[in-house]
Amino acid sequence: MTVRIVVLGGGFGGMYAARALKKRLRGAAEVELINAENYFVFQPLLPEVGAGSITPGHAVSPLRFLLKGVFVRKATVDSVDFARKVITVFQGIQRMPVEVPYDHLVIALGQGVDLSRMPGLEEHALKMKTLEDARRLREHVIQQLEHAQVTPLEDTKRGALTFTVVGGGFSGVETVGEMKELIDRSLPFYPKIDPSEVRVLLVEYAPRILNEMPEKLADYAAGHLRKHGIELKLKTGVASATARQLVTSDGEVIDTRTIVATIGNAPLRVVSRMGLPSQHGRIAVDRTLRVPGYDNVWALGDCALIPLKEGASERFDFAPPTAQFAVREAKRIAKNIAAAVAGKPVQPFSYKSRGSLASLGAKRGVAEVFGIQITGFPAWVIWRSYYLALLPGMGTRIKVMVNWSLDMLGARSLVQIKAYTKPPLRYVYYRAGDRIYNMGDRSDGFFTVVSGAVEMDRVNPQTGETVTRVIGPGGHFGERLILGATRRKTTVRAVEDTKVLVMNREEFMMLADGFPAFREYFRPYMEERGAQWPPASD
Amino acid sequence: MTVRIVVLGGGFGGMYAARALKKRLRGAAEVELINAENYFVFQPLLPEVGAGSITPGHAVSPLRFLLKGVFVRKATVDSVDFARKVITVFQGIQRMPVEVPYDHLVIALGQGVDLSRMPGLEEHALKMKTLEDARRLREHVIQQLEHAQVTPLEDTKRGALTFTVVGGGFSGVETVGEMKELIDRSLPFYPKIDPSEVRVLLVEYAPRILNEMPEKLADYAAGHLRKHGIELKLKTGVASATARQLVTSDGEVIDTRTIVATIGNAPLRVVSRMGLPSQHGRIAVDRTLRVPGYDNVWALGDCALIPLKEGASERFDFAPPTAQFAVREAKRIAKNIAAAVAGKPVQPFSYKSRGSLASLGAKRGVAEVFGIQITGFPAWVIWRSYYLALLPGMGTRIKVMVNWSLDMLGARSLVQIKAYTKPPLRYVYYRAGDRIYNMGDRSDGFFTVVSGAVEMDRVNPQTGETVTRVIGPGGHFGERLILGATRRKTTVRAVEDTKVLVMNREEFMMLADGFPAFREYFRPYMEERGAQWPPASD
Repeated sequence: MTVRIVVLGGGFGGMYAARALKKRLRGAAEVELINAENYFVFQPLLPEVGAGSITPGHAVSPLRFLLKGVFVRKATVDSVDFARKVITVFQGIQRMPVEVPYDHLVIALGQGVDLSRMPGLEEHALKMKTLEDARRLREHVIQQLEHAQVTPLEDTKRGALTFTVVGGGFSGVETVGEMKELIDRSLPFYPKIDPSEVRVLLVEYAPRILNEMPEKLADYAAGHLRKHGIELKLKTGVASATARQLVTSDGEVIDTRTIVATIGNAPLRVVSRMGLPSQHGRIAVDRTLRVPGYDNVWALGDCALIPLKEGASERFDFAPPTAQFAVREAKRIAKNIAAAVAGKPVQPFSYKSRGSLASLGAKRGVAEVFGIQITGFPAWVIWRSYYLALLPGMGTRIKVMVNWSLDMLGARSLVQIKAYTKPPLRYVYYRAGDRIYNMGDRSDGFFTVVSGAVEMDRVNPQTGETVTRVIGPGGHFGERLILGATRRKTTVRAVEDTKVLVMNREEFMMLADGFPAFREYFRPYMEERGAQWPPASD
Repeated sequence: MTVRIVVLGGGFGGMYAARALKKRLRGAAEVELINAENYFVFQPLLPEVGAGSITPGHAVSPLRFLLKGVFVRKATVDSVDFARKVITVFQGIQRMPVEVPYDHLVIALGQGVDLSRMPGLEEHALKMKTLEDARRLREHVIQQLEHAQVTPLEDTKRGALTFTVVGGGFSGVETVGEMKELIDRSLPFYPKIDPSEVRVLLVEYAPRILNEMPEKLADYAAGHLRKHGIELKLKTGVASATARQLVTSDGEVIDTRTIVATIGNAPLRVVSRMGLPSQHGRIAVDRTLRVPGYDNVWALGDCALIPLKEGASERFDFAPPTAQFAVREAKRIAKNIAAAVAGKPVQPFSYKSRGSLASLGAKRGVAEVFGIQITGFPAWVIWRSYYLALLPGMGTRIKVMVNWSLDMLGARSLVQIKAYTKPPLRYVYYRAGDRIYNMGDRSDGFFTVVSGAVEMDRVNPQTGETVTRVIGPGGHFGERLILGATRRKTTVRAVEDTKVLVMNREEFMMLADGFPAFREYFRPYMEERGAQWPPASD
């Protein structure tokens, strides 16, 4: 009977593990890979996607191209029953759970992001974890330039032209550098924006950036970023965020409509629910990458805590969560599973880093390769060559190379392909004093106060007098939508730091139309105003 | 004082009009173009985007690159006050209306799509009007292949592998041909799908396709499509649609999870609200492209009905809604506005079509150029060359050429970049007998019956007996979400043709959390079950 090996996750760890397993075991095993997406993301290129130097499609490769002979299942993992040796998944739009049996299980699901410790950051920050995050960042940056070009409001323009990246690790540094390059190259097409109005910041909690790199290289990188007009805020954390501002741990309030958070790695819920032995939110495997207490469960990559020596306890005693390590772990896990299947002994994982690389934008980088430190243009060339060589699939490699070359020739496209539309139902944070809307503004949503309080001014049309009303938790405003209103008749401001639940106009109307209890609730309000449902069209 | 000319819309008509106006009037006029997107869409390439032979970014060009010297405003038009000569727009995320004054106004907003005459079509069909539509189609097709590869359900697989295009005009024919090519080239990577399981249909109400082309060419096109395995259903309309089926005017029920509607052109609401003289839903301009009764309001492109001769009344007496004509109209409108500004006489628009072209996929096409009819590969080469030459901007042209060449080399990428996520609140149609969900399925939403009726089966765990309950309009089901349920305990089927309002789990929970009236409504239900809010986590 053939052995069934199922790999969960199609990132560096999972994809390379499935590949190595198939190569090693061939017909002796059925190898299946389950991933929520049908592609492998080349994570190190995400900042390039975020800055538009390559298109989203070129930072990824279809798993089916990379994994010939492996059964690829596009599905999300719901749970694992280790006793019965089955995984429950949901496939696409299907509501029916499907069970997938395994003999050996490889967990390579990576990590998630949790920003909930800082009020408003989860709701208002962009992330740089997935392809979609990177794509959205590019669109968001262009959206800010478009807006700054036409807005008549000073403070809106200032916020639109202030771009903040939180976290000075590889991802944050590359993102801020690439983003600055995108902005600089785009400005000539926005005549109403003076370059001096643009502010780009990198906020880092530690006293320096690129903590994983030697100090000398980090210093070079910091100097390069500063020279290119990026402000570094070191020893600075994030206290809270709204759609318009970021408050630092020093209490500084920065007007910014772009916050990119590259911090907050946290275990994925599906992994923590598995109940496997864990430490620091990662699955605590033994040195052979096997989960203690299980013969047939293995883990690697960012979701696993992998000791590099016996009695590991310090941070550097464990494998760092990098692509370089994940690829080596994949090879070891394939060998060990093959050995376990054959009843042979398994070996501990060991690997020593070959170095590290970071791109800084504007054709500059820093690199440490086999102990040699390199900076500037040569480091950037090494960076691009290294990742080009590492890209799986010759097709993708050619496309990225061609597109990089085309990018150097002309202006970078400013096309904002898909505006990010706000979720129709969402939490929004305001700081005390923030206006929520003004009289005469578009009536675009319905608001419920979750915490805090707002103040609503209404001008009595007969007397010209202003009547003010305070609305606290559980109270709501903006319901004039149900009368068909298209413009606000009141002005609403937050009087405390306030969290509201916002429902867009269209969804509010659908609920009022389709869910009788909802409309019932508003009936007294409507009757008082002599209104009927459905409202007269605007 | 400089004259302010404002162009609404950045398609073929608007973009070329703004360009010609700037060139003609230079410093004598301020030209502004207002468009909801910051790019010009090369409409004829949308089917290629839908089939992935070029990426979305390559079918568009930034308006700012194309329109040097023209003020480009990314904004949506709310209304026009012709008496005050101001346009009210909303810019980006801003809720504040902004007024834009004009001396001359050019309306080139194009047409919208209205599928509401056929129940369920608006909700369940994909369109081919915008770049986003095309992008989504490609992702949707790949999603179906991924799903068919893994689903254990026969009827789901059949529906996933049946692809239907409605409308046999240029857009429909090119879309169905290109889509078939994408599927054919992708199948080798989906070993569980047999090519014989794939069904691709083109549904057209008229007795033949490509009504705008000579019959001989249309016959060739029909033959080509049939040869490549596409079924043509002529003299067939759409009666209704659900997420899983299409019902034709003959009463045939087709299991299909992909319906692309290329029909249903209709006036945009913003245009019809302007209250200008109109006919067949288009602004009825005079032969000089001016709106009768206004000195300074002009219209062109798809939103305008343009007579080609005095006393025009037949369909062929008016300019057809094609790019070829729009570009010529733009030149005429620029000349006429320049003349009007200078107090000189304006001229009527006249142009004779140079021919028409259609691509059929698989490197074949049909063309009629200056009266000469061409078919097959030569026609396809003409098609590609013509549109390549027409693409505005050398940068875009090179990129499209390079990407077309790369496409011919290797396999076409199967990456499903962004899964289409269903709107969190949406109307869904079911036909009598359709299951909505089964016991044991994922609890992913809350349902309210808008019209029709459903039947709910619950098995009593004590007695093993099945209890059935019918839920009619205004009734709801699936509310066990509020107790933290993750799996269905009932089975629900439509007993009549039924329309429901569905709210996704996450949004239901947000409303229950943030909007007290909503939770209050469910309190008796929860108390009956001894449940508390918030529910225990799953």
